[in-house]
Amino acid sequence: MKLFEYPSREAEAHVKTIIDRGLGFSSADHDQVLAFINDVKTRGDQALVEYTNRFDSDAVTLDTLKVTPEEFDAALASVDARFLDTLDRAIVQLTGFHEKQKQKGWIDTPRNGVMLGQLVRPVGAAGVYAPGATGGKTPLVSSVLMGGIPAKVAGVSTIVLMTPPMADGRINPHILAAARKVGISCVFKAGSAWAIAALAHGTDQVPKVDVVVGPGNIYVTLAKKIVAGTVGIDMIAGPSEILIIADRSADPACIAADLLSQAEHDAMASAILVTDSKALATRTLAVMELQLQALPRQETARQSLDNFGAVMLVPDIETGIELSNRLAPEHLELMVSEPFGYIDRIHNAGALFLGSYTPEPMGDYIAGPNHVLPTAGTARFSSALGVDNFIKKTSLIHYTEKALQNEADDVIRLAEIEGLHAHANCIKIRKK
Amino acid sequence: MKLFEYPSREAEAHVKTIIDRGLGFSSADHDQVLAFINDVKTRGDQALVEYTNRFDSDAVTLDTLKVTPEEFDAALASVDARFLDTLDRAIVQLTGFHEKQKQKGWIDTPRNGVMLGQLVRPVGAAGVYAPGATGGKTPLVSSVLMGGIPAKVAGVSTIVLMTPPMADGRINPHILAAARKVGISCVFKAGSAWAIAALAHGTDQVPKVDVVVGPGNIYVTLAKKIVAGTVGIDMIAGPSEILIIADRSADPACIAADLLSQAEHDAMASAILVTDSKALATRTLAVMELQLQALPRQETARQSLDNFGAVMLVPDIETGIELSNRLAPEHLELMVSEPFGYIDRIHNAGALFLGSYTPEPMGDYIAGPNHVLPTAGTARFSSALGVDNFIKKTSLIHYTEKALQNEADDVIRLAEIEGLHAHANCIKIRKK
Repeated sequence: MKLFEYPSREAEAHVKTIIDRGLGFSSADHDQVLAFINDVKTRGDQALVEYTNRFDSDAVTLDTLKVTPEEFDAALASVDARFLDTLDRAIVQLTGFHEKQKQKGWIDTPRNGVMLGQLVRPVGAAGVYAPGATGGKTPLVSSVLMGGIPAKVAGVSTIVLMTPPMADGRINPHILAAARKVGISCVFKAGSAWAIAALAHGTDQVPKVDVVVGPGNIYVTLAKKIVAGTVGIDMIAGPSEILIIADRSADPACIAADLLSQAEHDAMASAILVTDSKALATRTLAVMELQLQALPRQETARQSLDNFGAVMLVPDIETGIELSNRLAPEHLELMVSEPFGYIDRIHNAGALFLGSYTPEPMGDYIAGPNHVLPTAGTARFSSALGVDNFIKKTSLIHYTEKALQNEADDVIRLAEIEGLHAHANCIKIRKK
Repeated sequence: MKLFEYPSREAEAHVKTIIDRGLGFSSADHDQVLAFINDVKTRGDQALVEYTNRFDSDAVTLDTLKVTPEEFDAALASVDARFLDTLDRAIVQLTGFHEKQKQKGWIDTPRNGVMLGQLVRPVGAAGVYAPGATGGKTPLVSSVLMGGIPAKVAGVSTIVLMTPPMADGRINPHILAAARKVGISCVFKAGSAWAIAALAHGTDQVPKVDVVVGPGNIYVTLAKKIVAGTVGIDMIAGPSEILIIADRSADPACIAADLLSQAEHDAMASAILVTDSKALATRTLAVMELQLQALPRQETARQSLDNFGAVMLVPDIETGIELSNRLAPEHLELMVSEPFGYIDRIHNAGALFLGSYTPEPMGDYIAGPNHVLPTAGTARFSSALGVDNFIKKTSLIHYTEKALQNEADDVIRLAEIEGLHAHANCIKIRKK
């Protein structure tokens, strides 16, 4: 990871490299994913079983594709009791936060004889994807919580979880325990692009859903991009990002640890320290090297830091915030002595972690907010996964005969200017 | 337009035709639009001027691409005073409805030492597209209102309007009058895909925006599909749709007029009557033929009605509502004797028009709600254009040192199960 003075021509070139790094897939990947999707559309569950057995397992059949109640029971019996307590705590805390996101419908009576309103309704069915990682060894339990809980809170009646099985054909028991605790009973043993295709188009066994959410590798991401429009999706997620704005009050060891938490995700991830203290910058670089050497995912983290990491030395914190607003990071940590004093200036960030005792992983697992967040600059215009992804709004309009008369001439005038005579005629035919 | 009994095999086949009719563009269109976009990315304003002069006008230069204050003044002086009064009324009524859509940020203090929250912020800059139609003769004034007003209400500080000029290089004065009244001062004389490209990527003169909204032809729609992700977009809009559920109390002439209001838009539009009264069905078909013969856009409407229109005769209104929920129409009119009694059963519709005196054009122009609505079944999971399209939310998290200790073990446990050791380390390094 390199130190830059910002602003400078060199820093600017590196910022551009970070902004332009893209999602990391080729057009061959796109074509491959499209082929998976079309095959699932044609052959349904048979295609799901074949792909699952080719890539993840060799023990799934049409009869065992869907997780049974007995498998749920066995999973719950097999996991550590402390894990179940942690799940309970996470679910209570996440549910509490997402409950506050619920929106209410409303009606309004703005003029005599006119009633307007907006209904807020949950979607009928939602699909949640949870990655399983290599051989199901590192089950992304938190993906089950972050996708499932907002759907539950929104009131979605059918929630379908797709996750790849382990080599023996079972789902990792931690994933199943989380699903059961969240209240998801419909789980299929399938991952990657074919799982997304099954959710979007339906199969004999998999219900066709209205919305698909959750993180995944580039095949999952590409599949979501392709099915968007057929179903709603949460977002096209790019590699993880963290930007830390720190002043001399911050602890270099904490900064280094927090930067590494995103760098370990992915060689395309971006971890950036922005500081007005040269002493802090150099000390952080030194301590990070020590921490890196102890990290199992050292190589991934090093690639990320070398290519898309940076320490940006700025003349003052305000300049650092301007840089942060340009990058619109997924995660923004404010490790400065008075973090609350800067919130007003922060325009673009997925989630904001305030102060030195709010490291990013608190938000990944248990604090309450969702960890599925906008990346690649999209925090300029989009938001975390949440209850909003599982609702839709319907406008309501009602006029009495008399109220229609009051506004008839205005509507006719606008329709005729726009050349839409049949529109005008709807009013003329009702006009007294 | 044909009469079907629903349910029946024949009706089902026609429903499938309607659902599968798509957006009506080819891969050649896609490649053409991509070429326009790449050219604007490379050559900026020069490309805008060239395409504008090739397709819409022959009088636009780099110096006259942006509308001047004098052009606004001339436009306002040239339009009918009654039109200005209508604009004022529409703006007041639309603003009132959209004000009710505003969301507030919030904070929560769910546990000792923990503060959570959600900031709601307007995007920095928004682009609004308004189609100009053939030679600017049928200016879509309402597009300026429907795109601009929710952006204004959301608090967007930079709003850019793109609309094609007339042959003489001027913008239709009705469009400019609407823009001035809404408070949009930044207007460029460019339409189609190149206008969308300029908004998404910026040029010397056109500010790069965060969100692009508004209806358009297939080139505009394709361009929005391509730039989605670089900017936020409102939706990929398909052809217009209306579904009317009517019982014997409804007036066939009103039903026919309302069906034609959508059929006149586009040969791909879909207008469907669902009724439990055979007498009403046959009478509507007869009166529609008479109305069609008087309509300037008769040919377009006929094509739409023949290919994607239908009268569906159902055994009861409840069955009609089930069919409507399957189709998820953009506009749903309930012309039944007690429309409010059915709202609970209507799950999927962009906007709901209640009773016989609420024809769809009231919602197109003046009632208050937005007329940019989800089509092609996407009302299952998406909503009208509104204030939500111009905001983004940022999660806030703050822990004290002590609060972190309380939850440290839970976070470490989940991070280690997921194999994310650097995540666990962020907590361990702060743990006492």
